[in-house]
Amino acid sequence: MEPLITLTTDFGGESPYVAAMKGVILSLSPHAQLIDLSHQIPPQDVRFAAFFLRASISYFPPETIHVVVVDPGVGTDRALLYVEVDGHRLLAPDNGCWTGLMRQVGQTLLSGKPTVLRLTERRFWRPTVSPTFHGRDILAPVAAHLSLGENPRHLGQPFDDWVRLEWKSPIIEPNRLVGEVIFIDHFGNLITNIPGEAFARMDDPHIQILVGDQAVTRRVHTYGEAEKGTLVALVSSFDLMEVAVSGGSAQKKLGVRVGSAVHVISPTDPGA
Amino acid sequence: MEPLITLTTDFGGESPYVAAMKGVILSLSPHAQLIDLSHQIPPQDVRFAAFFLRASISYFPPETIHVVVVDPGVGTDRALLYVEVDGHRLLAPDNGCWTGLMRQVGQTLLSGKPTVLRLTERRFWRPTVSPTFHGRDILAPVAAHLSLGENPRHLGQPFDDWVRLEWKSPIIEPNRLVGEVIFIDHFGNLITNIPGEAFARMDDPHIQILVGDQAVTRRVHTYGEAEKGTLVALVSSFDLMEVAVSGGSAQKKLGVRVGSAVHVISPTDPGA
Amino acid sequence: MEPLITLTTDFGGESPYVAAMKGVILSLSPHAQLIDLSHQIPPQDVRFAAFFLRASISYFPPETIHVVVVDPGVGTDRALLYVEVDGHRLLAPDNGCWTGLMRQVGQTLLSGKPTVLRLTERRFWRPTVSPTFHGRDILAPVAAHLSLGENPRHLGQPFDDWVRLEWKSPIIEPNRLVGEVIFIDHFGNLITNIPGEAFARMDDPHIQILVGDQAVTRRVHTYGEAEKGTLVALVSSFDLMEVAVSGGSAQKKLGVRVGSAVHVISPTDPGA
Repeated sequence: MEPLITLTTDFGGESPYVAAMKGVILSLSPHAQLIDLSHQIPPQDVRFAAFFLRASISYFPPETIHVVVVDPGVGTDRALLYVEVDGHRLLAPDNGCWTGLMRQVGQTLLSGKPTVLRLTERRFWRPTVSPTFHGRDILAPVAAHLSLGENPRHLGQPFDDWVRLEWKSPIIEPNRLVGEVIFIDHFGNLITNIPGEAFARMDDPHIQILVGDQAVTRRVHTYGEAEKGTLVALVSSFDLMEVAVSGGSAQKKLGVRVGSAVHVISPTDPGA
Repeated sequence: MEPLITLTTDFGGESPYVAAMKGVILSLSPHAQLIDLSHQIPPQDVRFAAFFLRASISYFPPETIHVVVVDPGVGTDRALLYVEVDGHRLLAPDNGCWTGLMRQVGQTLLSGKPTVLRLTERRFWRPTVSPTFHGRDILAPVAAHLSLGENPRHLGQPFDDWVRLEWKSPIIEPNRLVGEVIFIDHFGNLITNIPGEAFARMDDPHIQILVGDQAVTRRVHTYGEAEKGTLVALVSSFDLMEVAVSGGSAQKKLGVRVGSAVHVISPTDPGA
Repeated sequence: MEPLITLTTDFGGESPYVAAMKGVILSLSPHAQLIDLSHQIPPQDVRFAAFFLRASISYFPPETIHVVVVDPGVGTDRALLYVEVDGHRLLAPDNGCWTGLMRQVGQTLLSGKPTVLRLTERRFWRPTVSPTFHGRDILAPVAAHLSLGENPRHLGQPFDDWVRLEWKSPIIEPNRLVGEVIFIDHFGNLITNIPGEAFARMDDPHIQILVGDQAVTRRVHTYGEAEKGTLVALVSSFDLMEVAVSGGSAQKKLGVRVGSAVHVISPTDPGA
């Protein structure tokens, strides 16, 4: 079986940087099967990358090698990591981009303790390393060597002091959920950090849903249930509460962005 | 030989949805060879998808499995289909996106009667199916099973009541062609629904060509024949009449959109 | 080993043209391994394509077949070429897009004399050739035949009169470098035609760096050395002088474009 190597970068679709990385990998490991995950991560947006990886890596077969290059700190003393968690293998700069894998917002996604190495063994790198392109000169050749069966332990040293990306936890109370928009997809759907299960449990028909200060009055299971143009709230395919516009863009309609507050309030509080 | 699976979606290049689908397929069918056709179909634009598929699927080897996810009706009671026509195999929502394969505008592209099944056999799906992401939870695993040799007949039930996408037919008379713009490519070239052959036959040097109310005075065989910036009419690589600007964008120059009327008139009507 | 075929076009991510080319290749050579380099080359921008290829092709294993379709002259009498240089194989229109491979700006990249053939043998083409889509009808099938082991000499005739793309040479003097911006990447980094080595040698602390008439006062080895938002000059991963904004876009900050002048001046001229 060909070893799978996926690529996730913020280089953009017109970039020769992606092409150079593919060439480096295939020169060392010509049978590697390259899978583009995305090259459209917004420039240097580590948080976007973290959500992206959380939403995709766990679907891949465990032996896959995932190369991630969203790297605002390239060339500084930030480490480059080999990470293994529940069999998933990643190569990425130490900026926390992979740490979303270990917790779904509000629940555990992967349960294992990660094995993390700092890449230090230069014999697996390109002979000359540019201070601005470690994706091509370090991560790509290391991925190729892994795909050829190299033992990860040879790549570097155990490393425990890796960056943990902090995620704001939603407030989950019986009659009140408070969270925020954490991801906006291509359709303009607003994904929040409120667990879908918590939202589903609040089935009071008089529930109030606010994004910023704008009310969402319709709850659905899927977009097409409501008339086109209706603002709706639902449980997303990420198992998180989502706000959408049927056949349209909630982002455009509401003018919100990542970080906007989301409230779900049950006015029929039994204690009220 | 590795089974080929192509992917066509409106998820956008930055989307974790595409990545998740690739992971699901490769987890079940690690030897599958994934081919990205496009993830830039305009959101929920079934008609664009239909033209896209018509312009590309017939070039693939027949055993290829084409997964199409442009799905405004996801989660409603619209069916999900397995389609086989002249050996081409598609998995797509029942919204007509594949029905352009069977007729070129004005002529037959594929001649066979399609075999259409409604996907009903849940054992080929992911155990949990999100109401908003059937691409990941139904179409991707079904594609993987097909690539592993599963008999399509096991996937579901014969289904005849599938959506036919209506295409407006052009008017084709000896001295008059009336059609419309049906596709605008990345270069701003305007593809019409007027058959190239019908346009080629109207070789009167005094021919009048109108897009909306704007005249196109130059006929060419290829863009570079005319001086840069010239508005030209020609037979496209789709065998349809096309209006273009040499070295530029006809869309920008004329400000037209899909649906704009196109007239080709021969003033030397023998009956006039 | 599966033969590698890379694709570089200006067709755009939403284009059925790319999909059609992939289908044509895979129909003839089902084991071919397709690698997307980019489909986002700006429309008809041969110079961008030339820089792109120069920045990526040399990283690939030599037996790879690179298909390049940036072709403003499609259908005119411009030739289509098979090029082999230092083992790298390209199929491209004769517009100079590949000629950047043979010289890095200021230094040699590939040293070999290229072998260039004009594609003339129609038996390797699709039976019908559209005058506007030679990528699908000529280059794709020729690439497929090459991947199946066809001898390149059978494809056409030796051809010497190919287009050389002219590159403006920078002025390199002991106390003065004058060049221009030749490429702007996705992050807004400005890549110049000034060799990195020449820039590195000018280590005078009072050096003046100008992009257009705007001064760059900070020199670094990598972006993250400077505070976010700082305008910096450095040696790029292309071994060329680069102007960037740490954590931002130099293109946006300076409002420059490809062709803008770049000056590096040492005021402590020993002769002053």
